[in-house]
Amino acid sequence: MAEKPVIVLVRPQLGENIGKAARAMLNFDLVEMRLVAPRDGWPNPSAGPAAAGADVVLEKAAVFETLAEAVADCAHVYATTVRKRGVTKPVVTPEEAAAEITRATGRSAIVFGPERSGLETEDVALARAILTVPINPEFGSLNLAQAVILCAYEWSKTSALVQPTAEDTLPPAPQAELEGLIGHLESLLEPSGFFYPQARADATRRTLRGILTKPAWNHLEVRTLRGVLSALVPKRRTSDRSM
Amino acid sequence: MAEKPVIVLVRPQLGENIGKAARAMLNFDLVEMRLVAPRDGWPNPSAGPAAAGADVVLEKAAVFETLAEAVADCAHVYATTVRKRGVTKPVVTPEEAAAEITRATGRSAIVFGPERSGLETEDVALARAILTVPINPEFGSLNLAQAVILCAYEWSKTSALVQPTAEDTLPPAPQAELEGLIGHLESLLEPSGFFYPQARADATRRTLRGILTKPAWNHLEVRTLRGVLSALVPKRRTSDRSM
Repeated sequence: MAEKPVIVLVRPQLGENIGKAARAMLNFDLVEMRLVAPRDGWPNPSAGPAAAGADVVLEKAAVFETLAEAVADCAHVYATTVRKRGVTKPVVTPEEAAAEITRATGRSAIVFGPERSGLETEDVALARAILTVPINPEFGSLNLAQAVILCAYEWSKTSALVQPTAEDTLPPAPQAELEGLIGHLESLLEPSGFFYPQARADATRRTLRGILTKPAWNHLEVRTLRGVLSALVPKRRTSDRSM
Repeated sequence: MAEKPVIVLVRPQLGENIGKAARAMLNFDLVEMRLVAPRDGWPNPSAGPAAAGADVVLEKAAVFETLAEAVADCAHVYATTVRKRGVTKPVVTPEEAAAEITRATGRSAIVFGPERSGLETEDVALARAILTVPINPEFGSLNLAQAVILCAYEWSKTSALVQPTAEDTLPPAPQAELEGLIGHLESLLEPSGFFYPQARADATRRTLRGILTKPAWNHLEVRTLRGVLSALVPKRRTSDRSM
């Protein structure tokens, strides 16, 4: 099974953004952060508060002087950039990168550039592929932590660790219970003239049945609706039953 | 072709987060933001700088007093929450919601709660489905703007592949029509004691709302059901209206 990808921040400027990136990573169970020449040194007092509890990621963050050192043990390096820069490398989406990373043997790294300028051409040259988020061409400024979370999120979707939320909703009520509800409603509507004129009665019944069949109500819901009907037309029922 | 989803922020606390959410929206070409009772009023001077150029989203943001008003014209309402709260509604991932929204007829809204507490049970009760991001169970605190960007990103992925809808079924009725039906039923049930004891009235109303929200009835079906209610309790209504 493939290893989790490493997240590499190259020359990050603000400690706050490093903290937010850590939070985004841990949200999707990524824990290995590497920092290349962070502008304000490391540790950075602004990172902790922004991590909002993802301290474990910050504490284990490793610092390197160059990107080459930071990814030395990685078999697959993805450089994130918004521009293609005319580099002759494959360009993949976060989704495609996640699929490759999960299938891959060896470690993968996803590399993010400084907030303002992005990765330099030399950084990109180290990578095997370019990772680009398909984005609004007229508003392409993606925040660092948000770029990280999109990649982490896509990775988590491919990993076996995260299961889609299992639904624990009740199944639809058995047909007999639904029939009981429909019959109950029809019997209450009968005296009101709802099914007149006679020529259209069958079509009206079908319409009503269609409306009540569509919801796939479970047995609790059907029971509640029987209670609603009894509450709506109490006197008629009482007098029917009297003595 | 499906309309773009509306992003609704319910009682957002920080202007900065509203701005970041706007930026995240515009990154993926979503432009319609609605605010329900923002804590510090609107406009908020902290929002603009955080939007980093997504001013067009903030300028067009509409403010509402209640969530019901904010989604009155929406046929499909998704409530984002991390907890399941034992609500019997379908639970979908951002990916599944995006696919539904893109296939859907009628407008969709994705609703986000306040930063600290998330959506209230009453807010969730308005929605047809719950949207949950499958996340690290041991670190589930997802920043507001990051939750928004994951949903916007997933939507943008499906919108690139938009297919003409094969279905020609009617869309669910706008939320306002559904509210009309719920209000009508409640007003008829009120005199019968259905909502007693008082202590359980709110829970009973939520149960009823859940049952009626689930079906995604179209406007013809809602109209038929209004007719059903009028037919069931004709005398009471007639006497109410008399002279």
